[in-house]
Amino acid sequence: MINVLLSQIQEKVLLTDQDQEAIATFFISKKLRKRQYLLQEGDVCKHLAFVAKGLLRSYNIDEKGNEHISIFGWEGWWVSDLNSFLSGVPAVFNIDAIEDSELMMISLVDYDRLTLAVPIMDRYFRILFQNSLVTKERRLMSAISHTAEEKYLNLAESNPHVIKRIPQNLIASYLGFTPETLSRIKKNLALKR
Amino acid sequence: MINVLLSQIQEKVLLTDQDQEAIATFFISKKLRKRQYLLQEGDVCKHLAFVAKGLLRSYNIDEKGNEHISIFGWEGWWVSDLNSFLSGVPAVFNIDAIEDSELMMISLVDYDRLTLAVPIMDRYFRILFQNSLVTKERRLMSAISHTAEEKYLNLAESNPHVIKRIPQNLIASYLGFTPETLSRIKKNLALKR
Repeated sequence: MINVLLSQIQEKVLLTDQDQEAIATFFISKKLRKRQYLLQEGDVCKHLAFVAKGLLRSYNIDEKGNEHISIFGWEGWWVSDLNSFLSGVPAVFNIDAIEDSELMMISLVDYDRLTLAVPIMDRYFRILFQNSLVTKERRLMSAISHTAEEKYLNLAESNPHVIKRIPQNLIASYLGFTPETLSRIKKNLALKR
Repeated sequence: MINVLLSQIQEKVLLTDQDQEAIATFFISKKLRKRQYLLQEGDVCKHLAFVAKGLLRSYNIDEKGNEHISIFGWEGWWVSDLNSFLSGVPAVFNIDAIEDSELMMISLVDYDRLTLAVPIMDRYFRILFQNSLVTKERRLMSAISHTAEEKYLNLAESNPHVIKRIPQNLIASYLGFTPETLSRIKKNLALKR
């Protein structure tokens, strides 16, 4: 599993053999079965988790009991409640496995130690967070300014594999729709073609 | 102006005198008058800009001509169309000054050179982007799952100075409301108190 992580890091920065050995010492591996939780709302998020295999989702539940998916995390992605992880406040997100998954996890103490011991990891995380910001920025503008149909088309076009792999009710939750709205949108789009 | 930037960097990482001198060589300063543009949609965003003084907003305009504000940037914040800056694609955001402003700007070439010449800047930007992600994550979940009244209250409570300093029609645009909706929310809240 550590090799999946090291390969992903090396897509962004160069690592010496010594760096790779050092990095490996800071991570622990964890397996999750489908539907198992990595994090529950109200608990403190103790780890940043790298998805080496599988698929997870991060979501919260509003006062009316509606589920809102924040992100999907598949191979090569990181999942966490970043605010809870960094500040130690209770998590507002739940994270669970949509498929059987394998993770490489790092605690906050080790995250700090890692970036001091292997400074190139600051560069790796700088690039990772920089790219995440671009993604979040696009999604935020889409949530504010696009119609339901535009939101669905954006997702379908930018992540065609997501649409295939993830159950439709979860896609609806990610886009902030009811499953009925998503069905209607897909029917309308099919009619237009 | 460079001193405002260096102070802000030193809130997050330690800089030697040599680091400070090196950093200064990569930035150029720019003044903007109120209503002047830093970036127009469709142009490539050539600089990351640090706000040393003043207040700017980043926004886009949808097909119906409605304005949607993405962020406000005041003293100590960075503004850019990050995707356009990093990838050289046309910007989807406009950035203009709400107040007379003074900026410290860096080009992409110099941003790359800076992080190589002063590696601690990778750490600075890692922490900066990490914090921005936390803010964006909260705002995204708020946009998806909160009522209009909750969105307004979140903003008012987390950024009381924003509410005072920024014109109400811009606050409405930031929250994704019409100015009429914002007025109604504020009246309702005043009645509850």
